[in-house]
Amino acid sequence: MFQDFKLVGDRPVAIQVKEYVKRLIIKGALQADQKLPSTREMSDVLKVSRNTVIAAYEGLEDDGFTYAIPGKGSYVAVMSGQLAPNNGGADGSAAAWQIDWKTRMNEYAVSAVELDMMKQGIRAKKGTISFTSIAPDEQLFDLGDVRRAFLDRMAIEGQVLLNYGYAKGYKPLIDYLMRYMENKGVDISGKDMLITSGFTEGFDIVLSALRPSARRGAAICENPTHHTAIKNLKLQGYEVTGIPMERDGIGVNQLEAVLQKQPHRFDLAYLTPSYHNPTGIVMSPAKRSAVMKLMMRYQIPVIEDGFNEELRYSGAHVAPLIATAGQGNGVIYIGSFSKVLFPGLRVGWVLGDRALIDHLESIKRARSIHTSTLDQSVLYQYLLNGNFDKYIKKARMEYKRKYELAKACCEAHLPEARLSGDGGLHLFLTLPEGVDTRRLLEACTDQGVIFTPGDRFFIQEGEGTNTFRLGFSRVTDEHIERGIRIIGQQARSFLKA
Amino acid sequence: MFQDFKLVGDRPVAIQVKEYVKRLIIKGALQADQKLPSTREMSDVLKVSRNTVIAAYEGLEDDGFTYAIPGKGSYVAVMSGQLAPNNGGADGSAAAWQIDWKTRMNEYAVSAVELDMMKQGIRAKKGTISFTSIAPDEQLFDLGDVRRAFLDRMAIEGQVLLNYGYAKGYKPLIDYLMRYMENKGVDISGKDMLITSGFTEGFDIVLSALRPSARRGAAICENPTHHTAIKNLKLQGYEVTGIPMERDGIGVNQLEAVLQKQPHRFDLAYLTPSYHNPTGIVMSPAKRSAVMKLMMRYQIPVIEDGFNEELRYSGAHVAPLIATAGQGNGVIYIGSFSKVLFPGLRVGWVLGDRALIDHLESIKRARSIHTSTLDQSVLYQYLLNGNFDKYIKKARMEYKRKYELAKACCEAHLPEARLSGDGGLHLFLTLPEGVDTRRLLEACTDQGVIFTPGDRFFIQEGEGTNTFRLGFSRVTDEHIERGIRIIGQQARSFLKA
Repeated sequence: MFQDFKLVGDRPVAIQVKEYVKRLIIKGALQADQKLPSTREMSDVLKVSRNTVIAAYEGLEDDGFTYAIPGKGSYVAVMSGQLAPNNGGADGSAAAWQIDWKTRMNEYAVSAVELDMMKQGIRAKKGTISFTSIAPDEQLFDLGDVRRAFLDRMAIEGQVLLNYGYAKGYKPLIDYLMRYMENKGVDISGKDMLITSGFTEGFDIVLSALRPSARRGAAICENPTHHTAIKNLKLQGYEVTGIPMERDGIGVNQLEAVLQKQPHRFDLAYLTPSYHNPTGIVMSPAKRSAVMKLMMRYQIPVIEDGFNEELRYSGAHVAPLIATAGQGNGVIYIGSFSKVLFPGLRVGWVLGDRALIDHLESIKRARSIHTSTLDQSVLYQYLLNGNFDKYIKKARMEYKRKYELAKACCEAHLPEARLSGDGGLHLFLTLPEGVDTRRLLEACTDQGVIFTPGDRFFIQEGEGTNTFRLGFSRVTDEHIERGIRIIGQQARSFLKA
Repeated sequence: MFQDFKLVGDRPVAIQVKEYVKRLIIKGALQADQKLPSTREMSDVLKVSRNTVIAAYEGLEDDGFTYAIPGKGSYVAVMSGQLAPNNGGADGSAAAWQIDWKTRMNEYAVSAVELDMMKQGIRAKKGTISFTSIAPDEQLFDLGDVRRAFLDRMAIEGQVLLNYGYAKGYKPLIDYLMRYMENKGVDISGKDMLITSGFTEGFDIVLSALRPSARRGAAICENPTHHTAIKNLKLQGYEVTGIPMERDGIGVNQLEAVLQKQPHRFDLAYLTPSYHNPTGIVMSPAKRSAVMKLMMRYQIPVIEDGFNEELRYSGAHVAPLIATAGQGNGVIYIGSFSKVLFPGLRVGWVLGDRALIDHLESIKRARSIHTSTLDQSVLYQYLLNGNFDKYIKKARMEYKRKYELAKACCEAHLPEARLSGDGGLHLFLTLPEGVDTRRLLEACTDQGVIFTPGDRFFIQEGEGTNTFRLGFSRVTDEHIERGIRIIGQQARSFLKA
């Protein structure tokens, strides 16, 4: 006995001894009321110091696995509720109980799996050049500044940060972000803000509050659009109507036509006016006001996705729709720094009418009490310290360079592809009709290059089968060049055929 | 102009200048194509260094608020999409658009507000002795160890921590917690784990997956029980049946009677076998196996709330239900350290059958992508460093002391009250029939003492009106003594009447 004890390097030894003995008790190798070896014996057998064993034995007693008899030693406690080892439930105990969980899952759970792209994602082998990610390049992260932000905040109110916070969010961060949105031209009078665990939670909470109780919901959005948004809309039971994109944003005439036909149909519109995902298009100012006037006429609340707004590479600042709306309260703006800053910090914000936010706050509390205070306060201090402005300047320069490189490579190696996008972390390409980008992907995968087929961004099955998205934020210059050349070669062979 | 510029102490000056000018542009005080003062002029007016102004002007250009003409200076860019100031939408623009959001909220959103206790919470005036919280006492937090855990982890993989993680959770933490649960006697074969943003998100996700699509759900639980759990069950559309508590846990005979009457009714059971909230009762080993046999016979999945399991003050370790179930997969265990460790770190875990967890993982991804990697990794490193064992030893001692003090005070000042609870951070008291603890609370509030009336922990309206919960974790010894004495005085006057 005690021969199989092995020390690992990275944990206090006393805890390793404690857990080792616990397992022997759990497994039944040590029986109830059995005496443990003396601390001296144990330290000899396990080749650890006697003080270590003493600490371990104390821990076992604290955790209720042993009891001490003064002057005699430590004894194994009766593990109540514990199954005898190898008791496979032959006695008809709950140990034999098996539920077929698949049959217990409802539509929502089943669709969640079906619509979960991560579970249908392409498994790329090592060394593959991957254009599938649009996450930021972690090489740009200024870890030193993040570390300082954490230490600054901990020094100011560490105990507060580690205890419960508020569902609405961390007050200093809310105040900061309200100012931040004001500086984008937003009139914040009558508006309020909810901090969420990133864009996705904010979006899902808004959908869950606006979904009609009696009938299925109906949403209208750009087509193509952000696939996660399509997923959440479907999971929340919305029928989704897509309006084709044009070079300067959503097709306003088509939008108007659809609304005229069914004036009372839609519960909400979901729009990404800046650096739209996947097309990268920035909606023109003219279209912005045209769209807003339509939404007002048909009284359709707008959920504005602030996605990548910070990644403007050129041209004048374009105000978000919620700024265009002035004191109007018809727009719900959902923002996040995840695509620019640190996605690992799950922080997003919902800005909208005060009465709306009041409801969303209660839903947020019911769902997850509140967003990580640590994430919120580190982000706040990081912003306050002025690190964001410094970082975004560096990030913009680097991404702009990669953006132009990727664009140049596409023009050189993929002349047949129509390119869209004015910025952001990806390009969206459209090949001539008939080229199936899923088959193109298979061919490229064999050549060690992967990308995201575009059809998954479209509302209807079979749309956009000749499109694909190239995310370049985490690809080296050399790989961008080589990868796009390979895609070009493969595409040409498809075009010949 | 520029006279109202005011510097604040805690932000880089260049950023303050940039944001100040931005606001002038947004407000329309600076018009499109208007020339900004030269950097020298501006530094004189604002009384900041010229380099600061130069940096601010660069920032304005980067953000697209100005453009530079070489050799001439900086000019205000055309703010496309921007509303003209004072344009209240007289032109019928979207600025006039008002939605009555209250009318747009569905049942779920409205109930979320109605069931939101924080919004009906008692607002205590300064200096009030509050027994309403059962959050940990932040004075016990070992900030130094948390700081070190953060720095250790950042040093090892800072860039990874700040970029996207996995919906399932941070792998090292999952591995650690699987071992941790094994050490509680759980057979982890065939089981898997999902990390969530605390217990509440895990619970809500499980409920959303098990809720029947066709009809209302039906849940059975202890009565009284955790009020947040009741709230989430109701919000997810479950009818809740409560089984009265006895001194050693749920009333098994009553439970059996209810199940016999409607053998196929219930979709799930929600149970808190250890340090049950609010009664603090630990279910006896005999009852644990009796309950498990019933659940198996009627094939009712059990959601086990691991609430406060770590706060065992005496007696032998009692294995959780999921351990009692051995290789059986009928129990879903939801754990969290929030009541013991740091609630600000929103980390909980769901341990259950692998096929179940696979579905829950996709729901988690759809709801919030993943739990804060920072929270998960700091917690992991903190645990790995052995800090938890050190901390829990200290916390147990302190809470046990307060628990015994509070108990003694109740016996001295509230002899009429029946006391329940074997540990944890609160006591649950039952006064003689007819004493309304909400009215008692009103009387005590006037005397500067507040607590949680017990009725909110009961399933049906009008139950437990003579009960209340005393959370002592964040109350000083002196206040525990004085507060309970005051409650006793008030209670007696009610009993006389």
